[in-house]
Amino acid sequence: MTTDNVKIGLIGAGRIGRLHAEVLAHRVSTANLSMVTDIVLESAEKCAADFQIPTVAPDPQAIFDNDEIDAVAICSSTDTHVQLIIEAAQAGKHIFCEKPIALDLASVDRALEVVKQNGVKLQVGFNRRFHANFKQVRDLVAAGKVGQPHLMRITSRDSAPPPISYVKVSGGIFLDMTIHDFDMARFLIDSEVEEVYAAGAVLVDPAIGEAGDIDTTVITLRYANGAIGTIDNSREAVYGYDQRVEVFGSKGVAISANNTPHNTAYYDAQGAYSSLPHFRFLDLYMDSYIAEMKAFVEAIQQDTEPPVTGLDGRYPLVMGLAAAKSYRENRPVKLSEIDPARG
Amino acid sequence: MTTDNVKIGLIGAGRIGRLHAEVLAHRVSTANLSMVTDIVLESAEKCAADFQIPTVAPDPQAIFDNDEIDAVAICSSTDTHVQLIIEAAQAGKHIFCEKPIALDLASVDRALEVVKQNGVKLQVGFNRRFHANFKQVRDLVAAGKVGQPHLMRITSRDSAPPPISYVKVSGGIFLDMTIHDFDMARFLIDSEVEEVYAAGAVLVDPAIGEAGDIDTTVITLRYANGAIGTIDNSREAVYGYDQRVEVFGSKGVAISANNTPHNTAYYDAQGAYSSLPHFRFLDLYMDSYIAEMKAFVEAIQQDTEPPVTGLDGRYPLVMGLAAAKSYRENRPVKLSEIDPARG
Amino acid sequence: MTTDNVKIGLIGAGRIGRLHAEVLAHRVSTANLSMVTDIVLESAEKCAADFQIPTVAPDPQAIFDNDEIDAVAICSSTDTHVQLIIEAAQAGKHIFCEKPIALDLASVDRALEVVKQNGVKLQVGFNRRFHANFKQVRDLVAAGKVGQPHLMRITSRDSAPPPISYVKVSGGIFLDMTIHDFDMARFLIDSEVEEVYAAGAVLVDPAIGEAGDIDTTVITLRYANGAIGTIDNSREAVYGYDQRVEVFGSKGVAISANNTPHNTAYYDAQGAYSSLPHFRFLDLYMDSYIAEMKAFVEAIQQDTEPPVTGLDGRYPLVMGLAAAKSYRENRPVKLSEIDPARG
Amino acid sequence: MTTDNVKIGLIGAGRIGRLHAEVLAHRVSTANLSMVTDIVLESAEKCAADFQIPTVAPDPQAIFDNDEIDAVAICSSTDTHVQLIIEAAQAGKHIFCEKPIALDLASVDRALEVVKQNGVKLQVGFNRRFHANFKQVRDLVAAGKVGQPHLMRITSRDSAPPPISYVKVSGGIFLDMTIHDFDMARFLIDSEVEEVYAAGAVLVDPAIGEAGDIDTTVITLRYANGAIGTIDNSREAVYGYDQRVEVFGSKGVAISANNTPHNTAYYDAQGAYSSLPHFRFLDLYMDSYIAEMKAFVEAIQQDTEPPVTGLDGRYPLVMGLAAAKSYRENRPVKLSEIDPARG
Repeated sequence: MTTDNVKIGLIGAGRIGRLHAEVLAHRVSTANLSMVTDIVLESAEKCAADFQIPTVAPDPQAIFDNDEIDAVAICSSTDTHVQLIIEAAQAGKHIFCEKPIALDLASVDRALEVVKQNGVKLQVGFNRRFHANFKQVRDLVAAGKVGQPHLMRITSRDSAPPPISYVKVSGGIFLDMTIHDFDMARFLIDSEVEEVYAAGAVLVDPAIGEAGDIDTTVITLRYANGAIGTIDNSREAVYGYDQRVEVFGSKGVAISANNTPHNTAYYDAQGAYSSLPHFRFLDLYMDSYIAEMKAFVEAIQQDTEPPVTGLDGRYPLVMGLAAAKSYRENRPVKLSEIDPARG
Repeated sequence: MTTDNVKIGLIGAGRIGRLHAEVLAHRVSTANLSMVTDIVLESAEKCAADFQIPTVAPDPQAIFDNDEIDAVAICSSTDTHVQLIIEAAQAGKHIFCEKPIALDLASVDRALEVVKQNGVKLQVGFNRRFHANFKQVRDLVAAGKVGQPHLMRITSRDSAPPPISYVKVSGGIFLDMTIHDFDMARFLIDSEVEEVYAAGAVLVDPAIGEAGDIDTTVITLRYANGAIGTIDNSREAVYGYDQRVEVFGSKGVAISANNTPHNTAYYDAQGAYSSLPHFRFLDLYMDSYIAEMKAFVEAIQQDTEPPVTGLDGRYPLVMGLAAAKSYRENRPVKLSEIDPARG
Repeated sequence: MTTDNVKIGLIGAGRIGRLHAEVLAHRVSTANLSMVTDIVLESAEKCAADFQIPTVAPDPQAIFDNDEIDAVAICSSTDTHVQLIIEAAQAGKHIFCEKPIALDLASVDRALEVVKQNGVKLQVGFNRRFHANFKQVRDLVAAGKVGQPHLMRITSRDSAPPPISYVKVSGGIFLDMTIHDFDMARFLIDSEVEEVYAAGAVLVDPAIGEAGDIDTTVITLRYANGAIGTIDNSREAVYGYDQRVEVFGSKGVAISANNTPHNTAYYDAQGAYSSLPHFRFLDLYMDSYIAEMKAFVEAIQQDTEPPVTGLDGRYPLVMGLAAAKSYRENRPVKLSEIDPARG
Repeated sequence: MTTDNVKIGLIGAGRIGRLHAEVLAHRVSTANLSMVTDIVLESAEKCAADFQIPTVAPDPQAIFDNDEIDAVAICSSTDTHVQLIIEAAQAGKHIFCEKPIALDLASVDRALEVVKQNGVKLQVGFNRRFHANFKQVRDLVAAGKVGQPHLMRITSRDSAPPPISYVKVSGGIFLDMTIHDFDMARFLIDSEVEEVYAAGAVLVDPAIGEAGDIDTTVITLRYANGAIGTIDNSREAVYGYDQRVEVFGSKGVAISANNTPHNTAYYDAQGAYSSLPHFRFLDLYMDSYIAEMKAFVEAIQQDTEPPVTGLDGRYPLVMGLAAAKSYRENRPVKLSEIDPARG
């Protein structure tokens, strides 16, 4: 264990990269950003200027070659993740990688294998695990307060749909949106999902359907321990970003409600008014991003397992692929159909 | 239209019969109970004494033969409903009948046919439609406030499981418990359900499984208008009777919470404590029973359609049978498989 | 102790009299209404017809003379209370009397003296003590959960002001409205109030000021045990009948919220909407009226002290008179100034 | 108006000074900390190291002498505020000063006079004005949603009492604690307070009484516009930091509730549990500290009036002195008794 600050190289200075840059620059006192790279050099330079990062490069190789750097934060586009993980692992760097690792299992498995061979740590960016509401639900479940889990419910609705250009390349709703909920489903209950059934529809925007995706879905999950789960997703909740979970069991139930920008209510002769949920995901999850990065740094300093491992990144992908198949074929699909090794 | 009080004969003086007797005696000023019958004469006599009912008989025929009586309330066991509906209709009596009408479609259709031929009114006892929370959700949906419905969620959990003796004859969870939620699913959204998928498990009590039933289920509903619904049921919520619904759509969402015995919160150094939901269904639904009976009486007086018709009694049965088949075969089942005429 | 039904004569068939008639007729199975009297005989007759009361008379003397009758419920105008209490007590009837007993202390003391001499029970109609929200607060305080009480807060606001004709004869806001809160202040904390300071204003309607009253007040209470209380009243809360209490102490706090007609929330792109509080006092307090009458009947049957005694009726009057003096003189007033015997 | 970053010198590197240092270093992108001074040079040095402040000095004169510095943040002990304000103003620096400016009116007036003469801006650190809950209440009031204000309520209770050593020098509860609520009372309603009545007691800890202070108080406020306010304070709410406000008026009411660390509820067979309020003031008010500093910087850049002026710092002191007098003499005290110029 060391208390030296962890030196991190940031790969990708787009929206999520800048977010992690701010987190590392101002909110995580145990780490320093040593370098930032982006194929668009101007982006890297702007990021460096805004967050006091001493070095800039167009190519992540500069990070891998730098012996002073302990770890990388991979925030580039999804299709680059696997190659960067492999190179970072071979360079002996610990790795924080935004989700998803990849959109196909073979690639993920290739990356995880190299990570394993090189003995570096890999944490996947499922930041929601670090949100106080969900953490509290999980802690209650883990402490046995809910008893044997019987039912799990997730409501996860975006406040506005992504651009159609994104829908076309994202891998579809199950891999770009529900994947967070698949991770949450595993996080909340200490049991794996064995079968999924996904009903879906295009109700928000026909253009999403024309792009080959759906925008509304309800998914049933069967856990190995017998519990049944359900996830509902929509690409557009006009009233805000709606993120609620619930675990019900033999001894009780834990239910999280939405956070709101303020807690002031107003009553007049016509009605009672209170705050809508947050509208932007960052307003809800900023603290989660900070907490996940602190946890990554702590895992490096204390040489412990990161709280969200490579396997934690792999399982939701299997669930997403199974959900997509279930939706296409309108039947329950066992995860072993997607991932025979699990059966 | 008449403003004369409606004279009602009560058939069955068990728990639910006595409930309706109290409602008619004390809470519905527009009706009078003229007679009560029960195969156990003592039950009828006690009911008559407790609620000032002038006449008692062992056989409902006494009601059918009485020209003074306008309507009957059928509160006897489920297996007697169809025959009593037929006899009442043939005697020209309007009919309030507890749910379910029957456990098989052919019997229901036979009863509805005779009702139709005789031009009497038939209202089925789906009392939850009259609860202020659910009525408010439906009113918001019906007023277009939610916009086009996309998602519907029902959580419906009993506070304690029924006796195993009841489980053995009830028709199973889908017909004795979820049937209320199937009705709610139709009530909340003005569209019919076309397909169901039911996942189920025995998690509360193995004896329920040994009796051939399940105690935990999650059901996915596909509506004709494209909306997707989900119902979760448990036979035992240790924290109370949990009854919540939600309709989400293009313009907003309507969500009902549980009612509680009191609205007092307590905070100490360890935590914040508030009231559990009601534990007994009557504490939650007493007002609904009153409102449904007032509505029945009003439909007779004003010669209008009752708010819950015979067809409203029939649809949930089809859904229940489809859910049972879906659970047995672990696949989505179209309602037309159960009820080809609908196809 | 007897389990015979208690036979009650009702004096006064106005609004509150009819309310108690309905309660006794339909909701209290341990009592029967034997007779109703009203100086307007038609009112008594209508009340008898509506609630199946066998005997009607213009004069309460008929009740006092009837040996079959155990108790009276005095629901006539305030200025008749003292004389009727005295006559009922002398006739050996137990007494339920609507609040206030009288508007001056000497009259109250005269009535209580005769009650005491004749050994009958007297319960005063502070029905709010029987509401689940406030009872829960008191129970928490009485059980020591709040610890030593430090602060007590009551918000009590009517949804609409009374007619000016009523304001002119009611005794003023402190005696017609705050008197309920003065009783609540004593009920919640087991200690007497020793000093009051009342700030007041005419903000709702100048006509109330012209009638010699105020419509808005904040009152500070000093309890014998050191706790400090505050009551705020308004004659008009446009959003509904606002009734909340709070007791804060060394170990915690108990806070009651308003009840609402339904528990459904609605969210759209503009805001989050929920139910206003009840608007009419009866929608909030009907169950309290039932519970107080059951408690009165039980006290008679079991020969125990009624839960709201004559002294409980007297103290709030002292507090009201002190508050009125405090407001007029804009200074704290000790209750011993009003009621030297207490000093 | 300038968009150059504002250069700020920090005076005092104790708890509150370090808080503002962190805010200025990481959360306010429009300002830079140029220097920090503290009579304990080690404190200044540690602060500089932790928050990347380039220059350190023992004496604030170094700040006043530095032409590069635009503004000072005065975070030293209260007894130094007036002298530092005067020197800063004479050096032409804009001033952010922690509350209170001073504990006596003459000193405050002296400081405000010099500020005025030198034409610099002075903002006083009433950070609560910037909290989303209270800001929302004020915005509703200011927008006329509440109508004419009739009643104002503040509950403000600390989670734990300060050390007795602090109580002895703080100026007493009215000047060290209620002063925030006096500011809030003015902030929420656009009208001045003219009279106060303070009831107080020692209920939390006898040592507080021995130190010459009280720990529990209820204060009645009379506003110039006729509204009546009430503040309740306690030095110790064992369940957390309790900060709620309410403004009631002719058209409605605005009510803020407490914020909580999470929004997860748990129900078991015994009860329903939810989160306590935050326990530490920083968990509640961190965002307010950021917002107030951003507002100060913006006022300098845009050459506008700061949102909390020197007079806003003066009024609560008058109210606090009047409350202390009211408590001592147990009578309502007009503010003109303390501050004749206002009369």
